[in-house]
Amino acid sequence: MKVQGKHFRSVWLDSDSPTVNVIDQRRLPFFFEIQRLTTVAETAAAISNMLVRGAPLIGATAACGLFLAASNDSSEEYIQSSAQLLLKARPTAVNLRWALNRILPPILAVPHAERASVARSEAETLCEEDIATNSRIGENGTALLEKIYQTKPVGQPINILTHCNAGWLATVDWGTALAPIYKAHDAGFDLHVWVDETRPRNQGASLTAWELQAHNIPHTIIADNAGGHLMQRGHVDVCIVGSDRTARNGDVCNKIGTYLKALAAHHNGIPFYAAMPSSTIDWACKDGKNDIVIEEREPDELLFVTGLSEKGQLTNIRVAPPGSNAANPAFDVTPHELVTGIITDRGICEAEEQSLLAMYPDYDQ
Amino acid sequence: MKVQGKHFRSVWLDSDSPTVNVIDQRRLPFFFEIQRLTTVAETAAAISNMLVRGAPLIGATAACGLFLAASNDSSEEYIQSSAQLLLKARPTAVNLRWALNRILPPILAVPHAERASVARSEAETLCEEDIATNSRIGENGTALLEKIYQTKPVGQPINILTHCNAGWLATVDWGTALAPIYKAHDAGFDLHVWVDETRPRNQGASLTAWELQAHNIPHTIIADNAGGHLMQRGHVDVCIVGSDRTARNGDVCNKIGTYLKALAAHHNGIPFYAAMPSSTIDWACKDGKNDIVIEEREPDELLFVTGLSEKGQLTNIRVAPPGSNAANPAFDVTPHELVTGIITDRGICEAEEQSLLAMYPDYDQ
Repeated sequence: MKVQGKHFRSVWLDSDSPTVNVIDQRRLPFFFEIQRLTTVAETAAAISNMLVRGAPLIGATAACGLFLAASNDSSEEYIQSSAQLLLKARPTAVNLRWALNRILPPILAVPHAERASVARSEAETLCEEDIATNSRIGENGTALLEKIYQTKPVGQPINILTHCNAGWLATVDWGTALAPIYKAHDAGFDLHVWVDETRPRNQGASLTAWELQAHNIPHTIIADNAGGHLMQRGHVDVCIVGSDRTARNGDVCNKIGTYLKALAAHHNGIPFYAAMPSSTIDWACKDGKNDIVIEEREPDELLFVTGLSEKGQLTNIRVAPPGSNAANPAFDVTPHELVTGIITDRGICEAEEQSLLAMYPDYDQ
Repeated sequence: MKVQGKHFRSVWLDSDSPTVNVIDQRRLPFFFEIQRLTTVAETAAAISNMLVRGAPLIGATAACGLFLAASNDSSEEYIQSSAQLLLKARPTAVNLRWALNRILPPILAVPHAERASVARSEAETLCEEDIATNSRIGENGTALLEKIYQTKPVGQPINILTHCNAGWLATVDWGTALAPIYKAHDAGFDLHVWVDETRPRNQGASLTAWELQAHNIPHTIIADNAGGHLMQRGHVDVCIVGSDRTARNGDVCNKIGTYLKALAAHHNGIPFYAAMPSSTIDWACKDGKNDIVIEEREPDELLFVTGLSEKGQLTNIRVAPPGSNAANPAFDVTPHELVTGIITDRGICEAEEQSLLAMYPDYDQ
């Protein structure tokens, strides 16, 4: 997508050197800065420290990191240990494992001298496919939004609520939950997005709002607490979120707080969709609610907040009394019965095993 | 309750001058500072700007403000216009209207020369009654917690989730939702409190955590997004919140986000209680969900966050991109069917009209 008129992806390789470029998302929305990663350790740290985040982008960045590893040392031991290092950087995103599992075999299948070039080619293909997949998610979601739009009185926008950031910054381009919004906006639909702030890391207020603003899409930031009230009073037509991992039974693991919004949508008869590529579906996980281990992150993410000071500097402030501790689960699981449907690159299906398998028969094992 | 060993109330009058003392709650948890209010305009501003907040404390402070008015000018015109000024300071808290309606007639019933002293006496009585009422709410809630405690395995604390601040800082003393927690703790129960941060103003992270820490009660701050996940995984035994206004039908209006927690409690079979004095019940409001107008506050409360800088100064930082707007509804309404019961000074009743009227037959009109 475009930043001040220039097209960017959220991760890309230098054409002439083993270098991975990422946008340091911790400095958005105030500073747009590109970080150049040249080692697999730097790449793992960029994932772990959330310079990059979002399930599809984590997978793509990890693939690019494995290219850096293969460029540095083409031995199987080094490449395998590098894959392990990347795998540990974020435990929940199933795309990370998927991306590494996909590109590791072709890299190791060729002679040492070719491994770096195969790794580059595999990583680039994976990135291109991510973009194409998200574009299709966008088209399928737009068809859904069109149906809702037709039910609205003339002159009234569709009100869409989203949580966290599942936009182009969370993928290589387009996004998952936001792809339908971008495509519907480009197709001329009148729409407005309620942007959940998304504590503790504020990805909604900082990243989603920034993305939507750059694309001139009407939006309003709200506290994570506000969505239920807005749904109860009829101000939300549909919820669309992304996913970090979706189980075979349709249980959707996504950013902490998603479950609460799904409960409110269900209670008020509002459709609730999760948008994702097939790589987010963990076919080995039968029951998301009971089987997915939730990543617990540092309490300081909650106890401190970063933002822009009056002097224009990124500043970290404490928002809780010294001596009080915090718990910081990063994700939650929305049980499939609260999910109206799953928007994928192949179409929209119900959030349950048979529907998912009917859409992805090639994944049945 | 005690602050560093010394007993404080959250509002009190000087004995020798028309002065209302309040704690500037905007500077907690980092600075404990007392503000001395000497005019009704200062009092209305203290309510409006949330130096004081919490439904019962707003009512008590307004009563004290009317004493300041009567001390300044004992004419009916001035006292009536002062009451109007106070009434407009916060639209949702029904206690504000209740407190003014209660003390205005006795003040105006006496000759001019006696109005200030009657106003003082009425305000002081109202404060004393608030304390006694909350103490009884605490006792009734403790009996409830005792039953839950008996179902817990030995050595495991009761896990209580609360939202916003309904502690002693929200009342004259004791609190409403926190009163049972203080009393149960003092009675030797092993308990742990999950403290919702409570965006956008962070009353949980700043005030509730500070109160509980001062009373040595084990607690953990969580993002407002986290409660659903914790309930789903069995880490919450009971939810207790306060209320800013409760309708005759048992619909509970409370700090924005309460409704989402009630949905999660209901979905996971966890009891959800609201604790309140009778003054919070708006008998004239038949249907809270449909009839209560929700106060919309300034977007900047969401777009900026205040906390302590590394240099130890209260600092305001921007957390969203300039150019993005925010909506900031301050309260929501939890429909009565999601409320297990209402803890009052007279006992615990179901959240519906007949039960409420059976508990308060003297309020039936």
